[in-house]
Amino acid sequence: MKEQIRIGIVGYGNLGRGVELAIRQNPDMKLDAVFTRRDPSTIPSEAKVYPIEDAEKFKNDIDVMILCGGSATDLPEQGPQFASMFNIVDSFDTHAKIPEYFEDVDRVAREHGHVGVISTGWDPGLFSMNRLLAEAILPEGNEYTFWGKGVSQGHSDAIRRVKGVKYGVQYTIPSEAAVNRVRAGENPELSTREKHIRSCYVVAEEGADLAALEQEIVSMPNYFADYDTTVEFISEEEMKKNHSSMPHGGMVLRSGKTGENTTQIIEFGLKLESNPQFTASVLVAYARAAHRLSREGQAGAKTVFDIPLGHLSPKSAYDLRKELL
Amino acid sequence: MKEQIRIGIVGYGNLGRGVELAIRQNPDMKLDAVFTRRDPSTIPSEAKVYPIEDAEKFKNDIDVMILCGGSATDLPEQGPQFASMFNIVDSFDTHAKIPEYFEDVDRVAREHGHVGVISTGWDPGLFSMNRLLAEAILPEGNEYTFWGKGVSQGHSDAIRRVKGVKYGVQYTIPSEAAVNRVRAGENPELSTREKHIRSCYVVAEEGADLAALEQEIVSMPNYFADYDTTVEFISEEEMKKNHSSMPHGGMVLRSGKTGENTTQIIEFGLKLESNPQFTASVLVAYARAAHRLSREGQAGAKTVFDIPLGHLSPKSAYDLRKELL
Repeated sequence: MKEQIRIGIVGYGNLGRGVELAIRQNPDMKLDAVFTRRDPSTIPSEAKVYPIEDAEKFKNDIDVMILCGGSATDLPEQGPQFASMFNIVDSFDTHAKIPEYFEDVDRVAREHGHVGVISTGWDPGLFSMNRLLAEAILPEGNEYTFWGKGVSQGHSDAIRRVKGVKYGVQYTIPSEAAVNRVRAGENPELSTREKHIRSCYVVAEEGADLAALEQEIVSMPNYFADYDTTVEFISEEEMKKNHSSMPHGGMVLRSGKTGENTTQIIEFGLKLESNPQFTASVLVAYARAAHRLSREGQAGAKTVFDIPLGHLSPKSAYDLRKELL
Repeated sequence: MKEQIRIGIVGYGNLGRGVELAIRQNPDMKLDAVFTRRDPSTIPSEAKVYPIEDAEKFKNDIDVMILCGGSATDLPEQGPQFASMFNIVDSFDTHAKIPEYFEDVDRVAREHGHVGVISTGWDPGLFSMNRLLAEAILPEGNEYTFWGKGVSQGHSDAIRRVKGVKYGVQYTIPSEAAVNRVRAGENPELSTREKHIRSCYVVAEEGADLAALEQEIVSMPNYFADYDTTVEFISEEEMKKNHSSMPHGGMVLRSGKTGENTTQIIEFGLKLESNPQFTASVLVAYARAAHRLSREGQAGAKTVFDIPLGHLSPKSAYDLRKELL
């Protein structure tokens, strides 16, 4: 067996835990160490866990560091910092700030001769790849992205901030009617309200005015006012039993025309029982690519648009042509 | 506007015609010339048409030659031949012979400093890319490819060879029940018969014994015996009116597991009103990539596994990150 790719994890929340699980499914890799800002003894990993400050001591022992922090505050700092010491992979997902973040990681990564694969996962990530691919093939057409059915963390948080709400979970659900119109090649113009439904499950505080709570949620600007929103009040037991997993998914469709007026539809979809575990699996495949690019002598920031698909697979180019083409 | 990519077409059947139409949708390209083995005056192209022997005179005038011949006899000869003179793109689709064909084109292309992108289109092509991507992300899982609803040329030909058949068209149709089982995460083992239905429309010769014809078709080994096959006899007018377009499509699904037992499903699908026009659009996007790879100084045979997706788009890497990631 060939030498294994040595992986490190920075940050051990749901995503970091998912990366540990995904590495076990890939025999060409091994998890070397986990780095955390918390007390290492509290981290339920089977790998060795160190304080994040110790990471620099592992410069020669880790081939790719997978950054599992959040995009709001962790990655803007950790991306450039770790790219000075390691090849890195992350799932930076603040779409509007990607160009700036790319430049930050690129500068440091080039200077230190490392590869930094940023913004992988599924959106940004697999969805972005399909948007690019479909647009390049069908330049005349419209693109539609639908998210869900899945839990939106931001919208769930918004519900929980409402006074009188004890717990709350919000599911984003694509409107079936809208999806079917796109699939039928209608090329519809879809308003925000027409594309997604927002379905909320809420545990109310004792004695709360449910009608008022519901009204406050469905009329919340930015989050719910522009959507058809349903609110269902449930018990705490039901919340724990039925709404504690993190499913997600969605689809990217492009409906285009070729020739005179010929309709061609490209669709990519995901149905995920666990959003963080899936994102972690994408990160791990791109860690393999980062390692390979680095071995080839490349350096700098890369995105899913820059990396040949063959680099994601442990198989040789010959075997890929023979088995999968 | 930047200099346009100058494209040539070799072979002007449905696919070559589709390439001409697709180039019109891409302002960064222009069709320079069409080359044919037929009498050039019979070719209904709006470009200049030349005998195929004249192609070598265009060595300095064409950036990428798109080969639109068949995989059985045209491409095995034309691929290496044209790769000695031009960057080429083709849709070689005899899966079992791809490794050998790759070597043939690679040797010549390297020797002459050209890029040869082979086996693009949708299967091989987009479907292969999704098989690779999904397998790399979900190493524990099963892959399912369904074709259709679409016309199978090989099976239609088989019907037409039956004595007593005047015209015949065969549609391959994915079994809805099978697709739904995969989408539900059942990871089913599916027999050939369970995956696809074969639906035949036949115009019989006058006086033919319809029951005998039907029996001969549904029991034909290799083609129909292993499937649930339906045969419907129709009039010549109905055949022309309802069965002369070339729709196709299909889907690649991977149903995998992460973590303990978490189901994750990746699905890619196409619904095409015109199979040749869509394949042509893929060829044209890869012609852009071939040109770019050549400009970067690369040479040799390439497949969809070797080419970064960003190379397919006319947009800059910066714009792609900003707009599509």
